[in-house]
Amino acid sequence: MTGFDKSGLDENVWKRIEKSADKIVFKPESGVDCLFAKFNKVDKAFISTLPNLKYIGLLATGYGTTDTEYAKQKGITVCNIPGYATESVSEWVFALILEHLRNLESAKQVARKGDYSGDGFSSIEIKGKKFGVIGLGRIGTRVAEIAQAFGAEVTYWSRNRKKELEEKGIKYESIENVVSKSDFLSLHLNKNEETEGTINKKLVGLIKSGAIFINVSPMELIDFNALEKRLKKGDITFIFDHPDEMNPEDVKKLAKYENCIVYPPIGFVTKEARAAKQEIFASNIENFLKGKPSNIVN
Amino acid sequence: MTGFDKSGLDENVWKRIEKSADKIVFKPESGVDCLFAKFNKVDKAFISTLPNLKYIGLLATGYGTTDTEYAKQKGITVCNIPGYATESVSEWVFALILEHLRNLESAKQVARKGDYSGDGFSSIEIKGKKFGVIGLGRIGTRVAEIAQAFGAEVTYWSRNRKKELEEKGIKYESIENVVSKSDFLSLHLNKNEETEGTINKKLVGLIKSGAIFINVSPMELIDFNALEKRLKKGDITFIFDHPDEMNPEDVKKLAKYENCIVYPPIGFVTKEARAAKQEIFASNIENFLKGKPSNIVN
Repeated sequence: MTGFDKSGLDENVWKRIEKSADKIVFKPESGVDCLFAKFNKVDKAFISTLPNLKYIGLLATGYGTTDTEYAKQKGITVCNIPGYATESVSEWVFALILEHLRNLESAKQVARKGDYSGDGFSSIEIKGKKFGVIGLGRIGTRVAEIAQAFGAEVTYWSRNRKKELEEKGIKYESIENVVSKSDFLSLHLNKNEETEGTINKKLVGLIKSGAIFINVSPMELIDFNALEKRLKKGDITFIFDHPDEMNPEDVKKLAKYENCIVYPPIGFVTKEARAAKQEIFASNIENFLKGKPSNIVN
Repeated sequence: MTGFDKSGLDENVWKRIEKSADKIVFKPESGVDCLFAKFNKVDKAFISTLPNLKYIGLLATGYGTTDTEYAKQKGITVCNIPGYATESVSEWVFALILEHLRNLESAKQVARKGDYSGDGFSSIEIKGKKFGVIGLGRIGTRVAEIAQAFGAEVTYWSRNRKKELEEKGIKYESIENVVSKSDFLSLHLNKNEETEGTINKKLVGLIKSGAIFINVSPMELIDFNALEKRLKKGDITFIFDHPDEMNPEDVKKLAKYENCIVYPPIGFVTKEARAAKQEIFASNIENFLKGKPSNIVN
């Protein structure tokens, strides 16, 4: 195991894994044949130190930190955990939007002080607004559906058209149109070589004045300098939740703007997501050992 | 006008009203024929001081503060403003739920201090939970629909069955079942003689342990002592937003419990709701003067 300790899994899941394994070590020895990893680098150099390796089980959805191509060459199966946090993250997006719209932090605080006047509070509704989703994978799809239930006019851009969603009234538009017309803009792309910088300088400039831009995906999807410049202009609100994956200086550069709201990375942290993640993690190793591997990414 | 000043209406709406009126006074004189009121008491004694009165236009949905029966006897038309805040309040309900589930106030605060670990945060999802709605009027219906979009299993109790909603999978249950089975319980009844104390001692006792009980309706719908006792027991969370309409001592009695969250009354405060409210208010008086009164409540 690498980047892993006992706290990552619940007792019952450990038991399943212990049952599957002859021996478990927390610092990989040259003889290991199965490796568990979270977000630590599992690159060519590291894989080369484990000549017997046959399986890499990731306790994560993303596999950008693993050299899946090299693993494939070596005949190593890499499995991830897709979709476990779909609902958790989708609900999180609306939590962030509604908290901001209703100014709940201040509302709780004034009420705690005994001020029940409501003076100074005003909001807008989600209903009737243009809600744009970039990337219509699992999470993007659920975000689009929930936005529609709130009464928003939902448009999307995604690499592939999703006819099923379009039949429900979620409209496909060019990425330029989605970005420039949306009152709420939510980004849901995986990070990979193709998607990095998708929201480039031109698109950042196109974001509608007054828009609320939510990014619960990796920050590498957005042109950083353009975003900072736009925040400085002060006419959009930006909400994000992966400061932990950024250079601390970059976080500070954004967080200093009043119109930038930073959250810790807890969008995927629900009991249901945690349970689903571990269930898939344990099943992946069991399935691999049975010769029927699941959730292979390479 | 009573309980009313210029700040209650936007400039363009004032203009419409000024156009309709020969003269506007802010302290009712005996000669007035049209009265505008917010939440001030318009009782028999007060109405009796205005012998020429023909119309009472309320800048509110509720009309419990107006003696509509006596007005009717005197041939006075009373009009209210129904439904202007349906979406605003429905979205507010989910804002309150999600803020609580995700502990957003703390999340913002730790992030502001530069702690991006996410340590100590855990949540549950709305999806898959039992979501009970008491009262399926305009707001209750929208809350039920949005809860369903989040993937909750939605049940309701209402005085009248709503077949259309039932066809969408929102199930009718007895009030006892809705209260005792729901993980999320949201109360949406108008306050009147029949509904006061609906959530009586027995029902308060039946609320599911661990449930989140949201009341954005008047507090008179709930047995106060039973609620306080239940909060003391500590096994439910109660969120409400009308402390302004309560005896301050009673608010303190509830607010001292950690599992009770108090908000100022801002659920209906959106730009859209404000605009809709004023539009209906101005139309009501215009329609009355044209002999085609709208939104009559008596």
